Amino acid sequence: MWADLAPIGRDPRSGGYQRFAWTHEDAELREWFCGEAVARGLTTVLDRAGNLWAWHGNPDETPGVVMGSHLDSVPDGGAFDGPLGVVSAFAALDALLAKGFRPSRPLGVACFADEEGARFGVACAGSRLLTGLLAPERAHTLTDADGIHLATAMTHSGVGPTRLGRDEEALRRIGHFVELHVEQGRGLDDLGASVGVASAIRPHGRWRIDLPGEANHAGTTLLTDRRDAMIAAAEVVLAARAAAERHDAVATCGKLQVVPNGVNAIPSHATVWLDARAASAEQVHAVITDVAAAAERLGGTLLEQSWSDATGFPDAGRLADVLDGVPVLDTGAGHDAGILAQAGVPSAMLFVRNPTGVSHSPAEHAERDDCLAGVAALATVIEELAR
Amino acid sequence: MWADLAPIGRDPRSGGYQRFAWTHEDAELREWFCGEAVARGLTTVLDRAGNLWAWHGNPDETPGVVMGSHLDSVPDGGAFDGPLGVVSAFAALDALLAKGFRPSRPLGVACFADEEGARFGVACAGSRLLTGLLAPERAHTLTDADGIHLATAMTHSGVGPTRLGRDEEALRRIGHFVELHVEQGRGLDDLGASVGVASAIRPHGRWRIDLPGEANHAGTTLLTDRRDAMIAAAEVVLAARAAAERHDAVATCGKLQVVPNGVNAIPSHATVWLDARAASAEQVHAVITDVAAAAERLGGTLLEQSWSDATGFPDAGRLADVLDGVPVLDTGAGHDAGILAQAGVPSAMLFVRNPTGVSHSPAEHAERDDCLAGVAALATVIEELAR
Repeated sequence: MWADLAPIGRDPRSGGYQRFAWTHEDAELREWFCGEAVARGLTTVLDRAGNLWAWHGNPDETPGVVMGSHLDSVPDGGAFDGPLGVVSAFAALDALLAKGFRPSRPLGVACFADEEGARFGVACAGSRLLTGLLAPERAHTLTDADGIHLATAMTHSGVGPTRLGRDEEALRRIGHFVELHVEQGRGLDDLGASVGVASAIRPHGRWRIDLPGEANHAGTTLLTDRRDAMIAAAEVVLAARAAAERHDAVATCGKLQVVPNGVNAIPSHATVWLDARAASAEQVHAVITDVAAAAERLGGTLLEQSWSDATGFPDAGRLADVLDGVPVLDTGAGHDAGILAQAGVPSAMLFVRNPTGVSHSPAEHAERDDCLAGVAALATVIEELAR
Repeated sequence: MWADLAPIGRDPRSGGYQRFAWTHEDAELREWFCGEAVARGLTTVLDRAGNLWAWHGNPDETPGVVMGSHLDSVPDGGAFDGPLGVVSAFAALDALLAKGFRPSRPLGVACFADEEGARFGVACAGSRLLTGLLAPERAHTLTDADGIHLATAMTHSGVGPTRLGRDEEALRRIGHFVELHVEQGRGLDDLGASVGVASAIRPHGRWRIDLPGEANHAGTTLLTDRRDAMIAAAEVVLAARAAAERHDAVATCGKLQVVPNGVNAIPSHATVWLDARAASAEQVHAVITDVAAAAERLGGTLLEQSWSDATGFPDAGRLADVLDGVPVLDTGAGHDAGILAQAGVPSAMLFVRNPTGVSHSPAEHAERDDCLAGVAALATVIEELAR
């Protein structure tokens, strides 16, 4: 399965992946998913948000136990974030059926759409739409950098966006959801463990800061006459970093758009995107309050784009016991399992060791043996839940 | 002529122009130029750098008097910067011939290629190539944001780039060059004058600053473990501004590229472009020394992309007298006339009042009466030079 996925959306220069929601590359990945489902005789169902579900058994009779993750990437992302969970789900299903396991409930493999939010700015858009945490009215306003609407992009991918909104039918089919994911830190490596169980996802969110400037000539406009949006952006970036240090949080301005972005034109507008996370919601909000004040002083505005409160996974202890006491640890990264848990779906997560902790980068890596241990752990957990 | 040019490369949202060198829009503008030349029975010649020359008379016998400017724009530029000089040149030629003026020398209208440098980063690339101030080896290394080489873009536009280098044949034809341009400041407006003569172009240049970072996950990487190229870029932007204030110069970071530019990825690379100008070369170099030191502290590098020393126009006083004592003023903006003057071609510039001083912006404007006064002044100057 890895060999089939490897070339899709791979940038030959960086070695990283450009797999954005509702693009040609995304369509190839989704086609691969459907092919794997067909090869195993699974029934593939598309929900109203564009997430894919491959079922063994009929989940309309009994809610099933679902494994899975996502296939899209951040710009220049790694090979493991997302795909490892989907590939491991198919592999765990294969292992369970091969040894003759007869589940008491249907088993499913899920591929969530647009988890990274790289194109339309909202992370976990597929699971948020499914659960209603992203309102269809809001979804219809989302556009990418070229001004293309999410609905248009979905339509072009053959997924009708006319019925967006919480999908009760699809949700009813999920008895339990388990997402396996490469760890995005060095927690397991520090503990010397191949696999771990997630206790919680820390509160996190995204904000968009718009800063106005005034276009003018770079050579003839006095410094005192300028209203330079690039200067404002630089001040916001540094204000966010200082606020994160102050409140023991992490804050990242990973994305910046400057208009018109010409060497000899004073920028007339800048947009900075801010990602902030911390152990508590209070800490994150303290960061945002500080950054909003900085933006306001510069004549700009700050807008929340997504917010996820702390999300606990109550089954963590029990599953760690089933896995012979593997470590239990929390994470600063958001995941579809967190969205489902927020919406009341019993959910859990397994992490696979990341030897460097590097993620969202072409250098992201997991060792083969750790990945195999992940598949085995996933199979054990599913056996426990679907016995 | 204005009505034909108005729609080409116009962004309907901003009202600004996207007219970049060797694009489809540029080809349309160049076609317009050739059409105007043909309609007047002028002979159109393409030089080795891709600049267009429309001749009345034979400049291979006697060097001619040439008017003109450029048709390309900065991103989201105004309608006047460039085109006003080309349209006024045709209009002045029409006026001179209509009143029966018999020039002692050939008259020419020039359209310089790639004046703004918006696509390949080098301003006045056409006149620099023509005069040899941009070496062909250097030109062949230039690429746009998509990695397309200048030579490739020129080839696709039907201009063979195989003979780049100082074009003696084309230079021999220019006895005098006069560029009319909309003023890019409020100098004439403050003086209450429609038209002025340029005394000099201040020294100016462009630099590129590359700042390395380390890609990683925005949610799981500790602040102390980060090497964030966006933070480095913000520090360089503010360092450039502070250095400009310190040395009484202007410095602009108008363009920034962040890699991978994803909301939840710590940037692994940032490139900042710096434009700096001042009354003296020493002041500009003092700014650059400070910014280079800041970049180096951040592990980055600073590279000169273009440099133009102060350029005087020695005919300024005489031409102002011919124009009944219009104001004489210097400018912080670079122009093809400055490049030709640097290369030893007798050159001059006329400015047309800009009521707000705004330029490189959709809001750039000049009043119709001032434009007509510009055409009349240009005709008077040409009459003086080609009597």
